[in-house]
Amino acid sequence: MPTPTEVVAHMMHQDAFSQWLGITVLEVNEGYSKITMMVRAEMVNGFGIVHGGIAFSLADSAFAFACNNRNNLSVALDTSINFLKPVAVNDVLVAIAREIHNGKSTGLYQIEIINQKNELVALFKGCCFRTGKQLVAVKSSL
Amino acid sequence: MPTPTEVVAHMMHQDAFSQWLGITVLEVNEGYSKITMMVRAEMVNGFGIVHGGIAFSLADSAFAFACNNRNNLSVALDTSINFLKPVAVNDVLVAIAREIHNGKSTGLYQIEIINQKNELVALFKGCCFRTGKQLVAVKSSL
Amino acid sequence: MPTPTEVVAHMMHQDAFSQWLGITVLEVNEGYSKITMMVRAEMVNGFGIVHGGIAFSLADSAFAFACNNRNNLSVALDTSINFLKPVAVNDVLVAIAREIHNGKSTGLYQIEIINQKNELVALFKGCCFRTGKQLVAVKSSL
Amino acid sequence: MPTPTEVVAHMMHQDAFSQWLGITVLEVNEGYSKITMMVRAEMVNGFGIVHGGIAFSLADSAFAFACNNRNNLSVALDTSINFLKPVAVNDVLVAIAREIHNGKSTGLYQIEIINQKNELVALFKGCCFRTGKQLVAVKSSL
Repeated sequence: MPTPTEVVAHMMHQDAFSQWLGITVLEVNEGYSKITMMVRAEMVNGFGIVHGGIAFSLADSAFAFACNNRNNLSVALDTSINFLKPVAVNDVLVAIAREIHNGKSTGLYQIEIINQKNELVALFKGCCFRTGKQLVAVKSSL
Repeated sequence: MPTPTEVVAHMMHQDAFSQWLGITVLEVNEGYSKITMMVRAEMVNGFGIVHGGIAFSLADSAFAFACNNRNNLSVALDTSINFLKPVAVNDVLVAIAREIHNGKSTGLYQIEIINQKNELVALFKGCCFRTGKQLVAVKSSL
Repeated sequence: MPTPTEVVAHMMHQDAFSQWLGITVLEVNEGYSKITMMVRAEMVNGFGIVHGGIAFSLADSAFAFACNNRNNLSVALDTSINFLKPVAVNDVLVAIAREIHNGKSTGLYQIEIINQKNELVALFKGCCFRTGKQLVAVKSSL
Repeated sequence: MPTPTEVVAHMMHQDAFSQWLGITVLEVNEGYSKITMMVRAEMVNGFGIVHGGIAFSLADSAFAFACNNRNNLSVALDTSINFLKPVAVNDVLVAIAREIHNGKSTGLYQIEIINQKNELVALFKGCCFRTGKQLVAVKSSL
């Protein structure tokens, strides 16, 4: 069986958009992930602050890395995000995904996004469905 | 007073991330917007399908263009998205933002994301707070 | 196989809280329900307007009647409600549940709550998980 | 100025539906509340388990008691609830409302619902708008 860290490394390797965001994985445990990125000028919206889609995307990656890392392929059903403080270019964001509920068929996760001043800038909630398929193929033992 | 179309043109002009996404504005009316984009290879996630943050970002731009276009600067409070079908590279997505409620201090919008086969791939809901500030500065008449 | 109407009649018969609310079922079709109730004095909150839990409960019943009526036992995962207008004692509310997505393992429903002036007072969204179990036992044919 | 405890006592006194639910207020602090109730037979739904509206209503009362207790009248905008475990008749539920964000115009609260086995049965999130009006009238000093 691959470890949670191995599953996330496998996911991150193929995840072109998380790479574009500049995401670095800081920590992975069963049902948990902690990742970071720095905000760039190309991520701002029409108000000169950072586009809501950037914070959402960071949280959504942390969610995926947390809910899939037992190698049970899980798909997002319903996610929500509350925006608490504006994010600016050059801010360093950290997303921490924690497991609220690990059900057989579904799971619930909460992701906090913190900036470099340790302020909570957004709170994300994600509910996933577990397909029961493997993410990283495991060879059957002989 | 700027028209809804002028307000959105002003927003889009400054919106670096919507430009990166390749968003084109198709239609704007009071409290309404319709926008489109084509999905590129750099937008996929660790499963080889399109990252949830891309659909969210498209919907969030449509939401912003709809809820701000009366030139009353509005900020997103709570948004949610349900993912109904996977999105693939080269899919052409259209987001249609409709106003459910236009309150004095808050507003509620629903955004449908449709693919080129006219399938609903995601449904987004956004609640905003109206600041009462102008987005595009209007000179006072003399 | 029981019809959608039969499944909902079976549910309503056992549903003590929907009975307390005074719910009447108006219409049932596959993945759809329309129900009504009148608000009573014992349903108000600390502001003298109707408690948010009443509108939620009405919508949640309409959701359950819509998502279960193909006799595939479904449980609510994630639900949300936006409150748009206050509700007063003696208001007559109608909840209309529509199916947005009917997946094999999950479903998405939207419920509008309308008052007697045909105003939208709340909008509810519900995501359910389908267990695959029967709600009304069907005897196997011989 | 009334204390948070006085504001909640004032609210609870008028709150007919919280009284019907059998809610007892356990603890109140600024932006915080902890309340409890026991589930009765008349609160079950069509599956013989407790209606989702009951857990929502308990959480919504805790939310209202937390977000209003600085005597700044606040109204619910967007609320959501995730159901994690079924609730049965005679279960004793405790709802704990914590303030995530206390903004000038809006606030964000999270409410955990725990049963008598200390299991998390539901998680509620509420976003409110602050009207700036007083809940309990304060006489101006002379």
